[in-house]
Amino acid sequence: MDFKKRALQLHSKHRGKIEIKTKFALNSKEKLALAYTPGVAEVSRQIAQDKKRVNEYTNRANQVAIVSDGTAVLGLGDVGPEAGLPVMEGKAAIFKNFAGIDAVPLCVKAATVEEIVNFCRQIQPSFAGINLEDISAPRCFEVLEKLEKELFIPVFHDDQDGTAIVTLAALINSLKIVGKKKQEIKVVINGAGAAGISIARLLKGYGVKRISLIDSKGEITSERTDLNNFKAKTVELLDLKGNSRSLKKSVAGADVFIGVSLAGLLKKEMVQKMNKDSIIFAMANPDSEIHPQEALKVGAAVVGTGRSDFPNQINNALVFPGIFRGLLDNGKKKVSQEMKIKTAEAIANVVKKPNPKRILPAVLDKKVVFAIGKAVRGG
Amino acid sequence: MDFKKRALQLHSKHRGKIEIKTKFALNSKEKLALAYTPGVAEVSRQIAQDKKRVNEYTNRANQVAIVSDGTAVLGLGDVGPEAGLPVMEGKAAIFKNFAGIDAVPLCVKAATVEEIVNFCRQIQPSFAGINLEDISAPRCFEVLEKLEKELFIPVFHDDQDGTAIVTLAALINSLKIVGKKKQEIKVVINGAGAAGISIARLLKGYGVKRISLIDSKGEITSERTDLNNFKAKTVELLDLKGNSRSLKKSVAGADVFIGVSLAGLLKKEMVQKMNKDSIIFAMANPDSEIHPQEALKVGAAVVGTGRSDFPNQINNALVFPGIFRGLLDNGKKKVSQEMKIKTAEAIANVVKKPNPKRILPAVLDKKVVFAIGKAVRGG
Repeated sequence: MDFKKRALQLHSKHRGKIEIKTKFALNSKEKLALAYTPGVAEVSRQIAQDKKRVNEYTNRANQVAIVSDGTAVLGLGDVGPEAGLPVMEGKAAIFKNFAGIDAVPLCVKAATVEEIVNFCRQIQPSFAGINLEDISAPRCFEVLEKLEKELFIPVFHDDQDGTAIVTLAALINSLKIVGKKKQEIKVVINGAGAAGISIARLLKGYGVKRISLIDSKGEITSERTDLNNFKAKTVELLDLKGNSRSLKKSVAGADVFIGVSLAGLLKKEMVQKMNKDSIIFAMANPDSEIHPQEALKVGAAVVGTGRSDFPNQINNALVFPGIFRGLLDNGKKKVSQEMKIKTAEAIANVVKKPNPKRILPAVLDKKVVFAIGKAVRGG
Repeated sequence: MDFKKRALQLHSKHRGKIEIKTKFALNSKEKLALAYTPGVAEVSRQIAQDKKRVNEYTNRANQVAIVSDGTAVLGLGDVGPEAGLPVMEGKAAIFKNFAGIDAVPLCVKAATVEEIVNFCRQIQPSFAGINLEDISAPRCFEVLEKLEKELFIPVFHDDQDGTAIVTLAALINSLKIVGKKKQEIKVVINGAGAAGISIARLLKGYGVKRISLIDSKGEITSERTDLNNFKAKTVELLDLKGNSRSLKKSVAGADVFIGVSLAGLLKKEMVQKMNKDSIIFAMANPDSEIHPQEALKVGAAVVGTGRSDFPNQINNALVFPGIFRGLLDNGKKKVSQEMKIKTAEAIANVVKKPNPKRILPAVLDKKVVFAIGKAVRGG
């Protein structure tokens, strides 16, 4: 049976991927009386006196909401909250399997930034953290900014921060392999949506000096007059001056190509014009910007993709379980820039001797969550 | 150790009562690729083409949201959403244990009717039903009315419908015991909040002709000029005319007393003035309107309370798991009056030979969910 059919079959067989489990059986009148009325009244009374006790007497402290409006689901676009649900269930399954976190998929009907923000504000009493997911750019930037200001629980937008962190981790180890320094490399990021902008910001924070960020019309620079707020802000933040060149021209002489855009956009002629020992992260889903074999054949030293069937899968699943484990265990209220960089370094360091076929640990590697947890504690 | 301490200990030992469980382990690269990216993309695509498929490929069809704003938690009042969370976790545990339903507690910060309604509207894509809980009256009436009009999934307010249904079930069997007819009895309901008004409406629908409904100021009748909208509407609906008498005067000559009010309000002198073979449901929590022994001593034929440590516990937990099992399994979009009456009759019929010490089945009786499921299918 082909892969797509098997995926559908696995989902319909189990009717999804997660369910609720009771922590102990309510199999006697006594247990029922303690766990529900009248016993639970005293528990409520204690929490009413001191709200913090909700984390002692309920599952809240280990509970994360995965919030999406379904406007940017995988590479599929605005397919609606229902179609986002299987993705969020998948994340919830990963949260539980890899980090023991109870994550609840909440795919919501929300038309505006204010509606998503308000929804997250409302659910704070029941959750210790919020993982935003698959919300379209540029709305997602505004949503995250507002929530980070207003909420008293940590908020993490996986498509922004998760992708940026795992990309930085991959870059750290790739640079070790080719022996180049972060201050000296030229990086071209193709795709100026949630992922591209976040990657650019994090690389800048990490110390990469020369970054080009490209959207469908070419490099976004101060010359461009057609940029939305967040692209314009990024131009300022990254100090992107000068003429706006095409992808082809931008890539010539670059050391690193990072694609978070569309299948097939990176031609082998472009790779040939990159600097020696080039690094290619062709992360478009489900098909990458260039086939890894093709890129390697024309001179790339390291190639990574978003796919699990090639070496070097650059996947958010390496990041979000560990980040939230660390946030929850250490009572962190914000995801700081320092925390993101430390997390990327921690992921990179799980691989003792990086080589062109192994720049990142496997998603199933249990050491990752532990390593990130330690990094978040200090970050 | 005393009961309250044991309840607290049970809750802190387990850190609450529910958690997320994955339906199958994500323990191989293959499973991960099928359940998450890239495999899940095809699942999302299928749902994007036809939203109904969300019920085939995810857990949604078995998922219910328990929504509360924490404004009327048990008998504690407006203690806030955090303090409501252990109660909702208890309900979720009961949902799972008794009916196999995955219920998610969502205790939310919501100040207005519109905010609660809007929240429920937003979460529809992720849930097949909504159980409203512990929302203060009269807001809860407006919330339920609006949601029943607007939503395409069933909405059930347990404090209204659940309490009314289980009370009717208890009444049906009590009338069998004392040999009285519904058309002939006089019923006094003390407490004109969510529960009291809903009980009155359902009893009227069932065929009880003489009902008095009493709030803190006396009977609510057309004479009263201080009634809120919903009480006024109930006066009209139940055709409550004439002078507003006190509880004491109203109870004299009544056959049934139903208390959803405060501890100790029903004095034994009042019971003595009720008709022969009186029926007393003293359901205030945690302490009832009269002690069962005291009521029996002065002539009551049947006494029920909300407590699990006396005979005849009249508890919503008999209703909500089965009602939702029936609603979900039969694709019902609304909880109709007919459905409520059939459900009450089904619960009553689980007890083959009712007697003064056994008017209702035990909460733990597995036959209840099954019996209600059948009733809902036909209702």
